[in-house]
Amino acid sequence: MRMVDLIIKKRQGIELTEEEIRFWITGYVNGEIPDYQSSAMQMAILFKGMTKKETSILTDAMEHSGETLDLSNINGVKVDKHSTGGVGDKTSLVLGPMVAACGGVVAKLSGRGLGHTGGTLDKLESIPGLTISIEGKRFEEQVNKIGLAIAGQTKSLVPADKKMYALRDVTGTVESIPLIAASVMSKKLASGSDAILLDVTVGDGAFMKNMDSARELAQLMVEIGKNLGRNTKAIISDMSEPLGFAVGNSLEVKEAIASLQGHGPSDLMELCYTAGSIMLVQSGLSKNVEEARKALEENVANGKAFEKFCLMIEAQGGDISYIKDPSKFEMAKNIVPVYATEEGYISNIKALTIGVSSMKLGGGRETLEDTIDMSAGIVLAKKIGDFVKKGDILCTIYTNKDEKTYKEIIQEILSAYSYSQFKIEHTSVIKEVIE
Amino acid sequence: MRMVDLIIKKRQGIELTEEEIRFWITGYVNGEIPDYQSSAMQMAILFKGMTKKETSILTDAMEHSGETLDLSNINGVKVDKHSTGGVGDKTSLVLGPMVAACGGVVAKLSGRGLGHTGGTLDKLESIPGLTISIEGKRFEEQVNKIGLAIAGQTKSLVPADKKMYALRDVTGTVESIPLIAASVMSKKLASGSDAILLDVTVGDGAFMKNMDSARELAQLMVEIGKNLGRNTKAIISDMSEPLGFAVGNSLEVKEAIASLQGHGPSDLMELCYTAGSIMLVQSGLSKNVEEARKALEENVANGKAFEKFCLMIEAQGGDISYIKDPSKFEMAKNIVPVYATEEGYISNIKALTIGVSSMKLGGGRETLEDTIDMSAGIVLAKKIGDFVKKGDILCTIYTNKDEKTYKEIIQEILSAYSYSQFKIEHTSVIKEVIE
Repeated sequence: MRMVDLIIKKRQGIELTEEEIRFWITGYVNGEIPDYQSSAMQMAILFKGMTKKETSILTDAMEHSGETLDLSNINGVKVDKHSTGGVGDKTSLVLGPMVAACGGVVAKLSGRGLGHTGGTLDKLESIPGLTISIEGKRFEEQVNKIGLAIAGQTKSLVPADKKMYALRDVTGTVESIPLIAASVMSKKLASGSDAILLDVTVGDGAFMKNMDSARELAQLMVEIGKNLGRNTKAIISDMSEPLGFAVGNSLEVKEAIASLQGHGPSDLMELCYTAGSIMLVQSGLSKNVEEARKALEENVANGKAFEKFCLMIEAQGGDISYIKDPSKFEMAKNIVPVYATEEGYISNIKALTIGVSSMKLGGGRETLEDTIDMSAGIVLAKKIGDFVKKGDILCTIYTNKDEKTYKEIIQEILSAYSYSQFKIEHTSVIKEVIE
Repeated sequence: MRMVDLIIKKRQGIELTEEEIRFWITGYVNGEIPDYQSSAMQMAILFKGMTKKETSILTDAMEHSGETLDLSNINGVKVDKHSTGGVGDKTSLVLGPMVAACGGVVAKLSGRGLGHTGGTLDKLESIPGLTISIEGKRFEEQVNKIGLAIAGQTKSLVPADKKMYALRDVTGTVESIPLIAASVMSKKLASGSDAILLDVTVGDGAFMKNMDSARELAQLMVEIGKNLGRNTKAIISDMSEPLGFAVGNSLEVKEAIASLQGHGPSDLMELCYTAGSIMLVQSGLSKNVEEARKALEENVANGKAFEKFCLMIEAQGGDISYIKDPSKFEMAKNIVPVYATEEGYISNIKALTIGVSSMKLGGGRETLEDTIDMSAGIVLAKKIGDFVKKGDILCTIYTNKDEKTYKEIIQEILSAYSYSQFKIEHTSVIKEVIE
């Protein structure tokens, strides 16, 4: 079998066989197939797509390209949530404790942020002392004890995805639905949870820019998950404006703490309640989503969800005094309000622009080698639908960059806003649920 | 400028600017842009194409990626012919001397064979002593003296094409019309001739499988040549069956000798007369193609074309005694006739299958590292339209491979033939002329 013949076959739109897909992935991971052939194959897939069968096989081949996690020593139905990424998305920090407080078992592996999207691991690491490097017995014991752990992926998990994603990132082949689906699902399957809830974001700040492609991706991933034997469901959620108010690592942790104490932004809470309800049903802990939602609301109100969060932070070595008193988090040197330049109802806040601006303020990384300023970011004062007058505060930036730099970034932030003279209809953050 | 952004731009079907195309080619040649980005770009071009403007810029960027040949020390209008490749295509060996005998100036750089197609350099090297490594002053002096030289490309000529072609070959991106056009034309332009005649082959044994794509490629190359200041014309010629009877290096040289002595196969001679006539008009040596054809026919008949061939072989160090007595060429150990298994008019002889079979008999190379058996190949006894009975000789194979190997190849050769019970209309080897 020659890789060039497989590339030509895919280029011509012919379905690849299981043997051919496994030949590619095995050869690519062990270095027999060079990057330049894999990148040509990925570009051919971007144009010609993959059938559901091909995508399932690709996912399975990627999942088994390295070690897979065995969670059988952890009691109960393990349920995992994965978001395809967004701006201000601190859902995992809020949702995990909420579900665990209701008896759910969340043994989660998360990722780092890149470009305009943040990563749960980076956010957690803004808490002094906290480690995301918990493996094996320590991971199992923590989940068995408190029902919740959020750890980093080990290097040996899905090496195919690490290599393929890095290559896609520099060869213009990120935006392929089957490749995204296989990338996400291979990691989720290798992470060993029994049930998976996918949060497919849609809009300006997400990979999927419109509902058609979001729905296609969500349905494909749900089908792959089911084909490969996992209880898999998906939510499609809005990412046209940032989620909640805070964007940036410690800023988002503070918002997560407030949310667990009952003061969460309505869009973030709606997403957490909807996702959490589905997860509790998937776990078999609730009969239906209505019952599940009640349990979640109760556990936020009575403080048990926040308690779970504290237990997790403590178990992972984090300094709990920061959680009890968030004012302890180091603040950025420059805290600068951004004022509205127009009057009207805010009709759009481009999440992509806000995400990129937060990155430039120091809150994100352009390449995986960059370091993050945990204190940097943006906190919105207004959201879509709010009415503002000229001079009202739109948002506040937090940065250690110099004035010249952040003044340029403020101009970019202002360009993210659109205004309308008419009242804007409020739409739900939940666009669709796919089961 | 980032290469990944250019890949995404092309992938989206947006025209690249001159600056962007030059950034790619310069960066790729000097090693700043890696193979894996170039292969993704080439695959995106294969799907999205290039405008004529982009292809002209790409050609120019490739042409100037290394040294270009300055032929200004050679007197007269230098005219070059280039074929896009075929099976049994010894045209350059016959046409060059014919045109030179009529006063034309042919300073030609040729290539080597790969896969099912032969290369003029390999064919020439089957003549003992002959060198194709003639450069600089020696090349100029030979052309000024006898009007004809056929040499190999120096390494410094069009390095972009060498690198890009090798990459396309292993990444399934050979079959892109703009990439083929830029590859051919960058080499022809860098070779310095004033006028260029392109022979675009079409059919089973050619890159272009149908007239539409052959016409598209021919028109594109003619336009690029004109845009970049050269008198450029094209012929589209048939490559559904092999050209002439002989396929294989010394076998083709012998057929070329016979052709120059007035005993050429009708399809090969028709192609040489048509191409030669256009070249003499391009050179300004004939007023029109009718006059030119007469001159060419006279110079074959009076032996002057053959004389030019001998002069060239001698000037390049070849042993002229082989040309005067072709029976001196070393013969393959096994010379085996292949018999017809059916009765009827031959309706097809798949050139691709014959080319690949000749390669497997030892007459070609699968990779550029393979060595060629100069004596190996196939000589057809019948062509399309001929009537055969069961047991008639279809062709004869020449090989030093063992019996087990060549018997398998004979089965493949037999599969190349189709038969009809009805008389087959003879069609001309010349499909179209594009000016």
